[in-house]
Amino acid sequence: MEKVTCDVLIIGGGPAGGVCAMTSKMNYPDKEILVIREFEVQLVPCAIPYIFGETLGCSEKNVASCGMAAEMGISTLLGKVKNVDIKNKIAYSDKHEISFDKLIFATGSQPFVHKSMHHALELQGVFTVPKDKTLIDKAKAYIDTIDDLVVVGTGFIGVEMAMEFAESGKNVTLVGGSKHILKGAFDPEIAMEAEEIVLKKGLHFIGEDRVKSIDDTNGDGIVNTVTLSSGKTIKTQAVIMATGYKPNTQLAEESGVSLGHYGGIWVDEYMKTENPDIFAVGDCSARRGFITKVPSKVMLASTSAAEGRVAGSSLYGINFIKGFSGTIAIFSTMIGDTAFSSAGITEEQAQDSHADIVTATFSGINRHPATIPGAQKQLVKLIAMHNGGQIIGGQVIGGEETAEMVNAIGLMIEAQLSVYQVMSLQVSSQPRLTAAPTSNPITMAATMIAHKIKNK
Amino acid sequence: MEKVTCDVLIIGGGPAGGVCAMTSKMNYPDKEILVIREFEVQLVPCAIPYIFGETLGCSEKNVASCGMAAEMGISTLLGKVKNVDIKNKIAYSDKHEISFDKLIFATGSQPFVHKSMHHALELQGVFTVPKDKTLIDKAKAYIDTIDDLVVVGTGFIGVEMAMEFAESGKNVTLVGGSKHILKGAFDPEIAMEAEEIVLKKGLHFIGEDRVKSIDDTNGDGIVNTVTLSSGKTIKTQAVIMATGYKPNTQLAEESGVSLGHYGGIWVDEYMKTENPDIFAVGDCSARRGFITKVPSKVMLASTSAAEGRVAGSSLYGINFIKGFSGTIAIFSTMIGDTAFSSAGITEEQAQDSHADIVTATFSGINRHPATIPGAQKQLVKLIAMHNGGQIIGGQVIGGEETAEMVNAIGLMIEAQLSVYQVMSLQVSSQPRLTAAPTSNPITMAATMIAHKIKNK
Repeated sequence: MEKVTCDVLIIGGGPAGGVCAMTSKMNYPDKEILVIREFEVQLVPCAIPYIFGETLGCSEKNVASCGMAAEMGISTLLGKVKNVDIKNKIAYSDKHEISFDKLIFATGSQPFVHKSMHHALELQGVFTVPKDKTLIDKAKAYIDTIDDLVVVGTGFIGVEMAMEFAESGKNVTLVGGSKHILKGAFDPEIAMEAEEIVLKKGLHFIGEDRVKSIDDTNGDGIVNTVTLSSGKTIKTQAVIMATGYKPNTQLAEESGVSLGHYGGIWVDEYMKTENPDIFAVGDCSARRGFITKVPSKVMLASTSAAEGRVAGSSLYGINFIKGFSGTIAIFSTMIGDTAFSSAGITEEQAQDSHADIVTATFSGINRHPATIPGAQKQLVKLIAMHNGGQIIGGQVIGGEETAEMVNAIGLMIEAQLSVYQVMSLQVSSQPRLTAAPTSNPITMAATMIAHKIKNK
Repeated sequence: MEKVTCDVLIIGGGPAGGVCAMTSKMNYPDKEILVIREFEVQLVPCAIPYIFGETLGCSEKNVASCGMAAEMGISTLLGKVKNVDIKNKIAYSDKHEISFDKLIFATGSQPFVHKSMHHALELQGVFTVPKDKTLIDKAKAYIDTIDDLVVVGTGFIGVEMAMEFAESGKNVTLVGGSKHILKGAFDPEIAMEAEEIVLKKGLHFIGEDRVKSIDDTNGDGIVNTVTLSSGKTIKTQAVIMATGYKPNTQLAEESGVSLGHYGGIWVDEYMKTENPDIFAVGDCSARRGFITKVPSKVMLASTSAAEGRVAGSSLYGINFIKGFSGTIAIFSTMIGDTAFSSAGITEEQAQDSHADIVTATFSGINRHPATIPGAQKQLVKLIAMHNGGQIIGGQVIGGEETAEMVNAIGLMIEAQLSVYQVMSLQVSSQPRLTAAPTSNPITMAATMIAHKIKNK
């Protein structure tokens, strides 16, 4: 056992751990910051679907850069931490005995498969989508040789993978447990526009049915059939289980750290556990919604990065007042040539929370005049509180600019701005880059809400 | 003389007048709203440069839609108002005598040419860039027949026109009175990146020299020479004077309405003149900077639209508290395949205002991983107050998403948010649409400023 000493030990080298390390070093330049991670090569998590199609084409093109870690003076060890002695502040990996002063769990998440489907994971041709290059390479090598696939799960990873497969000519069936795809991020009328594009690509989409079993009817250990609750069967050569992720908390739990909802590690707004020397950031931490304050299963690298920034600023006391008050859940994806983005809560989620809301949708064009080459439809739906008009959610359809538009909506939500502040917002207006100044869709939707509130 | 009666008369049908009319109708549905405008066909002002190159190619492709005016129940007259009897509330056009209760001047702006250059406007081949289809068509027809051009003025219109000419194979010399192009919107180090692209297109750029005279040395009334202060001469077949715009205020002035700075019509935060029944919006109104509060010459359709929204909500009393507190000046343009955007004040302008500021620049890639097709450099420079950390300016270089990024920065400025609120902002992160979650450039620049302030 090699003995190692550091001030701040970060377990995990994903987005949360990486950002936390850099932020810690910026805030505490005299402290020895050590990151221990399992994999030599770290994949960019949200680009994994693109390994399977033509967008990237191989995992070698999806390697996260280790940023400025080394040049900033951050140390890195390769290894898997087996247990942590919280009381004596020592972590043990297979090769190292690491003394620390502050410890940050950034152990991430792993694919979640409902236990009724665990039997399927034994079969050849059934894959989950882990953040592990070796396993992803294996899955890709297998899938490259076959034509018929079933993707289970209609969240972002499921839909993005299904589209990559379809675009490379495979016969893909996408099976979800809900009527519409991307349910957590979009209301039905927006999701249906995404579905239209998906169907045009030749994908088969089965919404309101569930997978009952995944089998090798030949008994040869190779998957060949997916059976749905309705009794319908799908012949297939491979199955992708894109049914979500669960926090990696075994190590924390075994060390005696308390968990919160959904099995994530309990943390306060500064990402601190009940022990002031122990923090947790990223997918392994327990999360709640920024608006609803109820537990949230949303796992996003961008949220993890924000948490890493908060923890890295708060290890030795309160440095900046900005804590992490819950996940806003800002999503974006491209479906075909159209971008779909969302921030905050959907109208459906607001209704489930019995929030008293007003919504408005404005549909226009993302360039002006509409004759500008490449101009396409741009739609903004805003969701605001009836009392006060605070913006609590937004969904956008448009071109590649869409992800940055939803960032502006996310900022409105986070800063608790109201439609009254947004309705006469000053914006940029350029023919080749934006909607017309007279009909900026965010401003228009905010104005429509203000008038609905007034006339209610 | 046809007698017409309305409640609200709006003189001018550009972005300010159009938005003001629609907003007025939304707020006061029972009022008769009448817009009187000069031109049957209204051009989209900021797309005029694209008429001259291949982006649009003709003015017929640059027609502003009259939006929902007619279907909203807004009346329109074609005509030019000759004088206004403010006391008796009657406006006279060549054909109409219009009684009103509230009057809004939205008379826009016209090309500004320094008086020392007025002689040049008499020559054949010398053009300004007015918002008048007939004159623009005439200029285009002339320029289509020649090869050598001088563009005077290195603001957005000058640079965009010069690029369109260069891209259609013409020999273009761009002459400005300042060392760098786009001086009002970008600090030198950013402007220099734009200049590099401009020069690569084969454009000649003369920065630190001024036009002394524009002549027909043959005495045939056709321009053929531009002489600079340095003595240098440029042989040319045409000259475009893109030297700014001045407010159209003759009508207001002759009616006895007070002017403010730079000859614009004086208005308060609700766009109201000294007379509570008379308003002014858009380029004809006197403007000041949102941060500096000093007079501003910035004229933007998006600012005009915001002003139209404010006035249209405030005609009969204060409806919404949101006034217009000065122009933030949010600019965007494409130079080649790179977008340049700016919001608020530049570092140079801040220094001129003796503002105690801190700046930071973060340079990254606009997609992640960097192997995503189409990924390009993305740079954010933020300018913030040393005391308090409020963001007062930002400049962005990147892809087509850039204009929406600077809208988020504009929102930060308008909502007076500080780097502390922005440094751990939750953002969207998607490989094909955004930078890596670990290095969102706005967040990174804000973090760098927070640390600079701390260590100052």
